Amino acid sequence: MAENQMKGEQSIEFREAPYILSGASVVGPKEGEGPLGEQFDLVTPDAELGEETWEEAESTLQKEALQTAIGKAQLTNAQIRYLFGGDLLAQLIATSFGNGEANIPLFGLYGACSTCGESLTLASMAIAGGYADYAATVTSSHFGSAEKEFRFPLGYGNQRPLSATWTVTGSGAFVLSTEKSHVRVSGATPGRIVDMGVKDNMNMGACMAPAACDTIAQNLMDFGRQPSDYDKIITGDLGSVGQRILIDLLDKQGFDISQQHMDCGIEIYDAEKQDTHAGGSGCGCSAVVLAAMILPKLQQGIWKRVLFAPTGALLSKVSFNEGQTIPGITHAVVLEHC
Amino acid sequence: MAENQMKGEQSIEFREAPYILSGASVVGPKEGEGPLGEQFDLVTPDAELGEETWEEAESTLQKEALQTAIGKAQLTNAQIRYLFGGDLLAQLIATSFGNGEANIPLFGLYGACSTCGESLTLASMAIAGGYADYAATVTSSHFGSAEKEFRFPLGYGNQRPLSATWTVTGSGAFVLSTEKSHVRVSGATPGRIVDMGVKDNMNMGACMAPAACDTIAQNLMDFGRQPSDYDKIITGDLGSVGQRILIDLLDKQGFDISQQHMDCGIEIYDAEKQDTHAGGSGCGCSAVVLAAMILPKLQQGIWKRVLFAPTGALLSKVSFNEGQTIPGITHAVVLEHC
Repeated sequence: MAENQMKGEQSIEFREAPYILSGASVVGPKEGEGPLGEQFDLVTPDAELGEETWEEAESTLQKEALQTAIGKAQLTNAQIRYLFGGDLLAQLIATSFGNGEANIPLFGLYGACSTCGESLTLASMAIAGGYADYAATVTSSHFGSAEKEFRFPLGYGNQRPLSATWTVTGSGAFVLSTEKSHVRVSGATPGRIVDMGVKDNMNMGACMAPAACDTIAQNLMDFGRQPSDYDKIITGDLGSVGQRILIDLLDKQGFDISQQHMDCGIEIYDAEKQDTHAGGSGCGCSAVVLAAMILPKLQQGIWKRVLFAPTGALLSKVSFNEGQTIPGITHAVVLEHC
Repeated sequence: MAENQMKGEQSIEFREAPYILSGASVVGPKEGEGPLGEQFDLVTPDAELGEETWEEAESTLQKEALQTAIGKAQLTNAQIRYLFGGDLLAQLIATSFGNGEANIPLFGLYGACSTCGESLTLASMAIAGGYADYAATVTSSHFGSAEKEFRFPLGYGNQRPLSATWTVTGSGAFVLSTEKSHVRVSGATPGRIVDMGVKDNMNMGACMAPAACDTIAQNLMDFGRQPSDYDKIITGDLGSVGQRILIDLLDKQGFDISQQHMDCGIEIYDAEKQDTHAGGSGCGCSAVVLAAMILPKLQQGIWKRVLFAPTGALLSKVSFNEGQTIPGITHAVVLEHC
């Protein structure tokens, strides 16, 4: 039998592998103009990427990100045993049409904007379980395809409340392996669905904060850690509204994360100058910030241990129009410098 | 390091665990009237299940199936460490709204109608990797929600060509464990995306058959087996048109599976009497046939070794309307009596 890798009630402790060999980020022009602009691997000159539809443009983002990550790891596609990928679109069409040519066995995943965390967890399980020498992940979102999927036609020019977030046009990809590097995934806390009854699709931060609280608190309990045991506790796309809720909710559970908390959605844009309101969102958001900013800091040892916790809001336009709530889910991984 | 569990180019060999402790099937009335009617755990009196929408009805199918499977295994929800679930709807709303109350950490999956195979593969990896003592899977489809999602409003009463399949209203759930039972998952072959350029969403069998061929041939090569090493090679929902294509395609690769092949979509309905044309489909189709018919035959030792290969067609109404092809994917698991 395989060695027990369970930790606490809900978490996994990876005792040796997996290591992150490489990460890659490809973003659109708006993200390129933001505070992290120079750190992305590729900023495309426009959001269409030469394609005829937003969905094909998003597929192209995934293709570019995956090939860049595989190239950085000095591998070929044939060496990647499994790919774990997902996006926000119905039936994951950005992923299906972006990765056919890659010719790598694919596990399609949907965890809304938490999918980057879900994909890293499953790829880590594949590596540490002895199922693959190399595995890759890819996730994406696109402002144009997401607005079409979830909200209003772009030409309609609707007003956005200040609690709304701006879907990131971008894709992040990672290669994981048993081969050593300077960053390893040392643990994971897969999340539960948490539904506090919030129904406002223009305030996703409020929808997702309770799920972020649940997973982060569980991670701290399962590993017997305090927030200060992490250099950073990083959520995916709570934005400025969700951040305040998360810090308050965790405080009530006895965990003060105000010193450690960072949110990829807040980092990626200059909200005031770029008119992005509460921050960035989408499952490309946490993925590109991980590749461009978090991973390099871990590689260099500036941060020693980070809890990376992408947050997802589980809704569709059908569930929203049928009056359903918007439950949240958060999948967290522990990343360590080594 | 964990023991190497890789087999051949693309497959996994599970040397000991995981075992399937239980399976459960919940279906609608049309499936109850079909040839497998008496073998399902629960046939609901109508397709609405007392809910106000098709989507909520599908969520209720998942709830019932999962609780039945957990109950049959004489476990409680708290003992199930991870749940691997999915459905066909945009953003997996049947899964999100069906499993919130279960309170089990959830990996949301999308592999179209191959999701049952994808979920069994990942749950098996979780068990055999030492990440969980008990894991569960749940997948579903619903005729009403699927027609709304992919085709025409039911009230429109459109004509269906004979190559069309009928989406199964049903959900199947399984509990896997390190604890012994009479059926174990001894291997898996995760599938690649295969796109032969077919664009006809009324002929899904033709879209999926090349992917089924790819995964089945790979499984046979990776494990060094002939078709006769399996009592049955069972696809998910190719239907009568896809079945002929699959047998022809594999024959060209030197594998004659005509004696072993069975298709869940063909088994579930009496196509002539029930007017279902090419057969059943949907990610509930293979799941309920596995729970109701395949698993019992394996438990009793009537079949010793089966290749269970659910087939998926990767499209959305957006990709279809934008003129895209319909690629296929097939995730296979090897099930053995023990």
